[in-house]
Amino acid sequence: MVGPELRYEVEAFYADYAAALDDTELERWPDFFTEDCLYKLVPRENWERNLPVALMLCESRAMLRDRVTAVRNTAVFAPRTLRHFITQFRIAEETPERLRVSANYMVLQTRVDDLTRIQNAGRYLDLIIRTETGLHFNEKCCVFESVLVPNSLIYPV
Amino acid sequence: MVGPELRYEVEAFYADYAAALDDTELERWPDFFTEDCLYKLVPRENWERNLPVALMLCESRAMLRDRVTAVRNTAVFAPRTLRHFITQFRIAEETPERLRVSANYMVLQTRVDDLTRIQNAGRYLDLIIRTETGLHFNEKCCVFESVLVPNSLIYPV
Amino acid sequence: MVGPELRYEVEAFYADYAAALDDTELERWPDFFTEDCLYKLVPRENWERNLPVALMLCESRAMLRDRVTAVRNTAVFAPRTLRHFITQFRIAEETPERLRVSANYMVLQTRVDDLTRIQNAGRYLDLIIRTETGLHFNEKCCVFESVLVPNSLIYPV
Repeated sequence: MVGPELRYEVEAFYADYAAALDDTELERWPDFFTEDCLYKLVPRENWERNLPVALMLCESRAMLRDRVTAVRNTAVFAPRTLRHFITQFRIAEETPERLRVSANYMVLQTRVDDLTRIQNAGRYLDLIIRTETGLHFNEKCCVFESVLVPNSLIYPV
Repeated sequence: MVGPELRYEVEAFYADYAAALDDTELERWPDFFTEDCLYKLVPRENWERNLPVALMLCESRAMLRDRVTAVRNTAVFAPRTLRHFITQFRIAEETPERLRVSANYMVLQTRVDDLTRIQNAGRYLDLIIRTETGLHFNEKCCVFESVLVPNSLIYPV
Repeated sequence: MVGPELRYEVEAFYADYAAALDDTELERWPDFFTEDCLYKLVPRENWERNLPVALMLCESRAMLRDRVTAVRNTAVFAPRTLRHFITQFRIAEETPERLRVSANYMVLQTRVDDLTRIQNAGRYLDLIIRTETGLHFNEKCCVFESVLVPNSLIYPV
């Protein structure tokens, strides 16, 4: 079983990841990934049937950077703020350098003229690699529950 | 005060419990309990007034198994998925084998044609026993906040 | 990096704080603060522009006690229960006695005749001091996301 030190390190990594997305430091987002990586946002229904369709799919850190640029330049998009809640971490050590982590996540969204609402929720299914500069996502798969999503999911999850 | 190792073990136990319910491995649910056990789902109002009425009440692992069978055979029930968020664990060790644990919980529900919504939320008030095969619930009392519940609460919490 | 023992201690402190608010032990709330302290509830928009307006502002434990009295004596206020979900703790040790802690929080609100809903959500930005009697908030700043708040935010967050 994974010990408390490793668990703490993993949870601190996700807390930092959430802070980058929630406090609109989006430019930091690609740095949480390895150079070669897989980032996927996929509906649960498709995931369970092994259907390949994803709402977002990036296969390298460079693609993640492109995504950030796209978000920053999308004009027709009402301003909103996000807040992540990530709980129930399950951690399995494949090797000292490779961790399989799953967790439940929920993203709250607040538009200027509206109450805080659930934007989307689901499960993270991640492969984390330890490099010289700390933990990084090698694969991050966000399996969200709903087929309906309030407004376009333009921000990463 | 309870140390980080025990806290980690408890949190990992709840993460596994949540995964069984969220990833529709409902058949695993009774295995989280001792053979003799008490599972109760009760409105906060009744709890605070010591009123005995519960929405769900099982007094043995066999009754929990019956409950799973009932859920699996309920036909008139729109498909939905659930996701648990369990936080703010408070752990007290009564003896090395008996733990009192309370935590806040929230269950999100997603129906096929709908957004993700809060199904119910409240507090777990649990007694956990350490057996040869690990931690098990001897008592699990789910005190939920609302008197109103969106649709029938057919799944365990 | 902060070790697991300290992290556990901090998380247990917040779990106790949440329990005081959620289980309506409001009289315990001021005891989580130092005698001189700062408690602030401020919209994100104001926070990010350094605007001073706060929805709630208390500058000593005595003021927090006054606040509790005010809440207890507010008659024109529909009964409701609250439940906190605090996640993604980020802890930085300034000195062995001073901790900077941030976390995401969400408060669920349930009125007698209504479903459980999100009341408000945001970020805690706290300064915690270790005294002879344990951890205490010296500063607690609750930066909430929405400008709109369902009903008046009368309870502390």
